[in-house]
Amino acid sequence: MAHLLSTTSSLNALTSSRAYSKPLNQRSVIFPASFTLQTSKFAFKRLTLQEKRPQRVCTAHAATLSQEAQSGVKSGTHQISSDSSKPKKVMVIGGDGYCGWATALHLSDKNYEVAIVDNLVRRLFDHQLGLDSLTPIASIHNRIRRWKSLTGKDIGLYIGDICDFEFLSEAFKSFEPDAVVHFGEQRSAPYSMIDRSRAVFTQQNNVIGTLNVLFAIKEFGDECHLVKLGTMGEYGTPNIDIEEGYITITHNGRTDTLPYPKQASSFYHLSKVHDSHNIAFTCKAWGIRATDLNQGVVYGVRTDETEMHEELTNRFDYDGVFGTALNRFCVQAAVGHPLTVYGKGGQTRGYLDIRDTIQCVELAIANPAKPGEFRVFNQFTEQFSVKELAALVTKAGKKLGIDVQTKSVPNPRVEAEEHYYNAKHTKLIELGLQPHLLSDSLLDSLLNFAIKYKDRVDTKQIMPSVSWKKIGVKPKTVAA
Amino acid sequence: MAHLLSTTSSLNALTSSRAYSKPLNQRSVIFPASFTLQTSKFAFKRLTLQEKRPQRVCTAHAATLSQEAQSGVKSGTHQISSDSSKPKKVMVIGGDGYCGWATALHLSDKNYEVAIVDNLVRRLFDHQLGLDSLTPIASIHNRIRRWKSLTGKDIGLYIGDICDFEFLSEAFKSFEPDAVVHFGEQRSAPYSMIDRSRAVFTQQNNVIGTLNVLFAIKEFGDECHLVKLGTMGEYGTPNIDIEEGYITITHNGRTDTLPYPKQASSFYHLSKVHDSHNIAFTCKAWGIRATDLNQGVVYGVRTDETEMHEELTNRFDYDGVFGTALNRFCVQAAVGHPLTVYGKGGQTRGYLDIRDTIQCVELAIANPAKPGEFRVFNQFTEQFSVKELAALVTKAGKKLGIDVQTKSVPNPRVEAEEHYYNAKHTKLIELGLQPHLLSDSLLDSLLNFAIKYKDRVDTKQIMPSVSWKKIGVKPKTVAA
Repeated sequence: MAHLLSTTSSLNALTSSRAYSKPLNQRSVIFPASFTLQTSKFAFKRLTLQEKRPQRVCTAHAATLSQEAQSGVKSGTHQISSDSSKPKKVMVIGGDGYCGWATALHLSDKNYEVAIVDNLVRRLFDHQLGLDSLTPIASIHNRIRRWKSLTGKDIGLYIGDICDFEFLSEAFKSFEPDAVVHFGEQRSAPYSMIDRSRAVFTQQNNVIGTLNVLFAIKEFGDECHLVKLGTMGEYGTPNIDIEEGYITITHNGRTDTLPYPKQASSFYHLSKVHDSHNIAFTCKAWGIRATDLNQGVVYGVRTDETEMHEELTNRFDYDGVFGTALNRFCVQAAVGHPLTVYGKGGQTRGYLDIRDTIQCVELAIANPAKPGEFRVFNQFTEQFSVKELAALVTKAGKKLGIDVQTKSVPNPRVEAEEHYYNAKHTKLIELGLQPHLLSDSLLDSLLNFAIKYKDRVDTKQIMPSVSWKKIGVKPKTVAA
Repeated sequence: MAHLLSTTSSLNALTSSRAYSKPLNQRSVIFPASFTLQTSKFAFKRLTLQEKRPQRVCTAHAATLSQEAQSGVKSGTHQISSDSSKPKKVMVIGGDGYCGWATALHLSDKNYEVAIVDNLVRRLFDHQLGLDSLTPIASIHNRIRRWKSLTGKDIGLYIGDICDFEFLSEAFKSFEPDAVVHFGEQRSAPYSMIDRSRAVFTQQNNVIGTLNVLFAIKEFGDECHLVKLGTMGEYGTPNIDIEEGYITITHNGRTDTLPYPKQASSFYHLSKVHDSHNIAFTCKAWGIRATDLNQGVVYGVRTDETEMHEELTNRFDYDGVFGTALNRFCVQAAVGHPLTVYGKGGQTRGYLDIRDTIQCVELAIANPAKPGEFRVFNQFTEQFSVKELAALVTKAGKKLGIDVQTKSVPNPRVEAEEHYYNAKHTKLIELGLQPHLLSDSLLDSLLNFAIKYKDRVDTKQIMPSVSWKKIGVKPKTVAA
């Protein structure tokens, strides 16, 4: 773990690019930490951390790891907002992941009381597939301790699997969230297309996990607002405008507003379609309040909060399984690998900066759905085709003196490579979203970021290794 | 099992109603039987049946139970059709159930080579919930032996769970189906709303089972045609006409034909929506050929084949969990229980006679979808509201001298009780379906059927016991 420890010099290098200029040491208050370990069996044990926490903490079935400041303020009782109508306690399921970690920190910074629920299986996938984040990432325990030491703010931690309802129940009853942000799903389309067992895992994990969250809300906190991460991929690429969740159809002289038709194109995207239908039903049948955030492709890595310390650094995936288009292109440019455009490159999608992801989630929480309402927001800020992104990265490379090549590779997916695409995305703007549009300066910064870490790039991970058509029934493993 | 053995007199009584007048003994050719037991591990064992098959046959992980006629014609090699382009081998998943058993017999009668795949869990549900079919039903082994003894036709049997891919693979590789009819799902909306664990079971079982079937087709027989039982309940009750699977939408000056929007209203119905989306994707990505039969509510019990012998009798569910509207009403009338109309009774659905279910499946198989085609048929013949059905049963009761009362009970479901409903159902008619419309004579016959078995009715099972709103997270069990 030596590479995770920051030095002042590397920390300065990390925060020196012009897109991220906030002074760091303003908030660098370091508390000596003591920890409370709370298991799902209501056995409370206290241990003082010295150098290392005992291994069993990481394997506890349902562990709440919260920190108490030396001030003696007890976790769960501090005041976080003067506005009593605002949700205060937010459970972030999947809070150790790419979007989840950035969100958890942001909400904590905004004085929400945050607890992360995560089984850390995303880290296991990296081990199993021989992948790694471009950025070194600290353990969730160290991340939370560092945040506490910098800001004085506690983030609760429940390590376990939401598919295990006993675990989830205990987490709910213990934390009593006002809102649940649910990122806790297998989130890669290629991963879901590796082999039969990963396809089945993806749907089972995502669908059952979400069902359990819905039951937990019904049973333990029916006022709790579910903010669920969906995907723009639920809609596919229809030849008509994509609306936000619903479409009004006039047919044979009659009119109704119905769920927008879904045409997902991987077992992963399909799992989100299934979730959306399940959630819509429980809103109607049980009065659950839910917001489905149909998110586009996220790019970027740094947020105001993650840039505060190297131990808060977010993960950055560039591989063929978890890496998403723009992030992957920046890494390819940084290491002199041609940008890999799949097929014709006319595939157009909605994109957004990770700083807008966290802003959108915060807006959804601050403006909750009404009881029984199933609200759908399309969460992206701009549309690009893959070809357009490649051209932008090429241009940004040129400014930095890098000669960026583009190569069309056979499309491993089954998707239209030239199509109409016009998706509405006004509802979050109406709630106050201030988009960070993709600018030259951001691209420069992202490229510089990739260049900084280019020695960590494993070029074998860049090319797509998963084929939509060739997926088979035998479990696939990765050789050394 | 003594009650399962037919006597000539009870058999005659069973077949004497005017709606079912086909002479029985025409086809009553009885073969002494010898059996071949084929396990998934390719170990072949032969045993001669005398009075009882050893118990281990029933618990074999993946057992093919086929019968050889004394003629020495080997299973799997007999000629069944002069038309070589017609599918010959049909796997009926869920072939021990209400629709599945009737279908398996019908296809066998039409000279398809049939194999039933079933884990028999539907029988377990009855045990666990303290329910029973109105009709006594023979074991699947005795059913198949009786069919063989009457017709000389073999029906293969693979007992196991399609969620177990190892089992399903062996069944596929062994039988090599040209078509798979997939009834093998948990098919009750109330069952899926009993408690959290049944909700989760329903979605996991149905979605993963269907995913496995899709993978088996891709891997072991990509020309195989999937005929999947969906439900009209996938559409919900929109305020516009329901089309067959797809709807052409013109929106902001552009037009596309898209999947019809889905609004399912139980975890069961939702599982079918999930299946439909998954199947549609695999048709597009892998070129699977599939027909989704969005079936209405099935009524009736006897078919030409099941009436041939009491051991072939189909199950008849009248309880609040598995019983469907019209069948349940007939039993209520027979025992002098008021017809239980849920709420206002304006709930309108598509209905069909079980003899049309088997006809529709046969038509779908005989006219397969093209490679890559995801074809959706709405499988019902008439629309009725619950109130209308109650009135029809009341009238039929009067003719038989029964005073039938109707009682509105609080609706245990969450559904519109008065709504527009107009669903298209022309595609199966175009393929040649000759509907058996609900007639006075059928209702007389169904009522008489219920009266014949009324001593078997457990009136405690009649009232709805499952509430859509009250479903909880604690496992529900049924006391003695």
